[in-house]
Amino acid sequence: MWKGLLLGGALAMTGVAGPAGAAEPISLRDMGSFHVGGRLVTISGKHVKEVTFTKGGVPARIDPNGTYQVEQMYVQYFLPTNETGAYPLLMWHGGGLTGVTYETTPDGREGWLNYFLRKGWAVYNSDAVERGLSGFAPPDVFEGDPVFLTTANPFERFRIGQGAGSYDPDPAKRKVLPGNQFPVEAYEQFVKQNVPRWTTTDDAILKAYIAEIDKVCPCVILFHSQAGTFGFKAAQARPDKVKALIAIEPAGVGDPAKADLLKDIPTLVVYGDYIDQDSRWPKIRATGVSFAEAMKKAGGTVDVIDLPKVGIKGNSHMMMMDKNNVQIADLIHKWMNDKGLTKKP
Amino acid sequence: MWKGLLLGGALAMTGVAGPAGAAEPISLRDMGSFHVGGRLVTISGKHVKEVTFTKGGVPARIDPNGTYQVEQMYVQYFLPTNETGAYPLLMWHGGGLTGVTYETTPDGREGWLNYFLRKGWAVYNSDAVERGLSGFAPPDVFEGDPVFLTTANPFERFRIGQGAGSYDPDPAKRKVLPGNQFPVEAYEQFVKQNVPRWTTTDDAILKAYIAEIDKVCPCVILFHSQAGTFGFKAAQARPDKVKALIAIEPAGVGDPAKADLLKDIPTLVVYGDYIDQDSRWPKIRATGVSFAEAMKKAGGTVDVIDLPKVGIKGNSHMMMMDKNNVQIADLIHKWMNDKGLTKKP
Repeated sequence: MWKGLLLGGALAMTGVAGPAGAAEPISLRDMGSFHVGGRLVTISGKHVKEVTFTKGGVPARIDPNGTYQVEQMYVQYFLPTNETGAYPLLMWHGGGLTGVTYETTPDGREGWLNYFLRKGWAVYNSDAVERGLSGFAPPDVFEGDPVFLTTANPFERFRIGQGAGSYDPDPAKRKVLPGNQFPVEAYEQFVKQNVPRWTTTDDAILKAYIAEIDKVCPCVILFHSQAGTFGFKAAQARPDKVKALIAIEPAGVGDPAKADLLKDIPTLVVYGDYIDQDSRWPKIRATGVSFAEAMKKAGGTVDVIDLPKVGIKGNSHMMMMDKNNVQIADLIHKWMNDKGLTKKP
Repeated sequence: MWKGLLLGGALAMTGVAGPAGAAEPISLRDMGSFHVGGRLVTISGKHVKEVTFTKGGVPARIDPNGTYQVEQMYVQYFLPTNETGAYPLLMWHGGGLTGVTYETTPDGREGWLNYFLRKGWAVYNSDAVERGLSGFAPPDVFEGDPVFLTTANPFERFRIGQGAGSYDPDPAKRKVLPGNQFPVEAYEQFVKQNVPRWTTTDDAILKAYIAEIDKVCPCVILFHSQAGTFGFKAAQARPDKVKALIAIEPAGVGDPAKADLLKDIPTLVVYGDYIDQDSRWPKIRATGVSFAEAMKKAGGTVDVIDLPKVGIKGNSHMMMMDKNNVQIADLIHKWMNDKGLTKKP
């Protein structure tokens, strides 16, 4: 107790006395990582190979037959010394991306991971099954091939540019949506964050997220885009363990027939700008809003916020890295506070 | 200045007053991530596909023709409030693994990332090109197929078990090397850290590591196994920017003909136990020792430490996660201190 108080005092003082513009230190009582979930698969009938792992190295015999660990999920956690969140905050990224979504923005500002950590939330950031540090499985375990995105694709699909054909290799010739908050000058850096993804692995991904819930929760889950499906479905699978849901432009939803399972879980759904001008987003938004309506009809509490309607304009699909990302995080933090999800003094 | 002093004081006090066994908080002036390096490749002549990214979602048109970002590398950094290292410490992992190597050990203890951070080193941990958060490239960019390891493979090859045939699905039947320090009870968790890797990407990996050096250094580089090749070669490419090298069981080395380029870079090479009993490790060690001799002949300072010879026994190839990992980290930290790599008060 004394330790926490003392450090808290020191931090509070530096906030006042520190040089203008310098951020306060982040004080962690712990940080680390683990993998959850997954299963073993057995492969047989393949030829033994001799593989030299390092040029000029000593060859090793690799027998591809045998048992493989697949579909595990990587989770990295940061626990603040002065925890003010009543529950840990789990962050789940969108498709073709990883937990890097919530780290430093492409143009080098602090992302939502640091933001919520600084606000006192214990943050668990992860890479979905087959993405990033979760690793991917040998051939024939997942159906089909992974999908790779061109440098142009997210620019045209994430409401940064003006739809199909708006990307050009020459940054000066790119047709950006007017007033867009995405840091377009660092678009190349964002492209480096993109990773391949299968489109047939939803069930495995959901299982691993549920394994994370079983290990870490009760908790609040913040999820983005593809993880719309996982956030709502995982909460339907573990309604007692999920204390709030924050859906950032969910691209999929839960089972509408089981919306009643979510009736005690306060939920925030956030959409950015330019949706009406896009070829796909009006329908994606409609699916989310319709699911929110089903939750409300079942007695649930859902707040759907279209950012432009509350005066926050220019947000792309990647609002956690947009230039006004702190403004949106403030809105989410305030919502969590209003819902009683922060510790009472 | 006052800020640092105050926090330092608070931390020092908690070290004395905290409950037995509770670690001091980690105080960071910043943490974040970025990608470095990589290149653009253009793919043409392929068919356009319609892909539904999320079950029940809205189909999107995916044109596989176009330009792709490939061979970038992910780096995550943690900068301590009270930095005592004179240079940042870069950590490079071995083959088939990622930066997770240096995070929490499979059995849940602190890894070398936290260790060196707590000692006051600014740590930059990364995933080699095509591993983990660096992402991998579309077909035809890398030569050949990725290699996947069975659950048995690292057990038999990393001097945890007694070589080929020592692994058994039943933990009770596994033939562990007597006195082994690897946390065998958490071997399954370690297997989850393994990721696929190509064996044809050394040049791309080296380029990305050099890009990291150009961004972050002067620095000290600690590298493991496959990264032996990268650590020594990157230092040969940027000798002025590398202030020390710490090679943990390097599986490859630099260009012996250019050993003189490393003569001003103090180097530590560390080997674990059981090497003589293994089918491959005597030769791997001999290659490293021979390179160390070439460096010495060129006027360099190289300390080769075989841990058993200094009384530290039972270490596997994964000594950073072995049960005595702190003892080995202490030895490395002392060496860096002796070499004048810590800040003078």
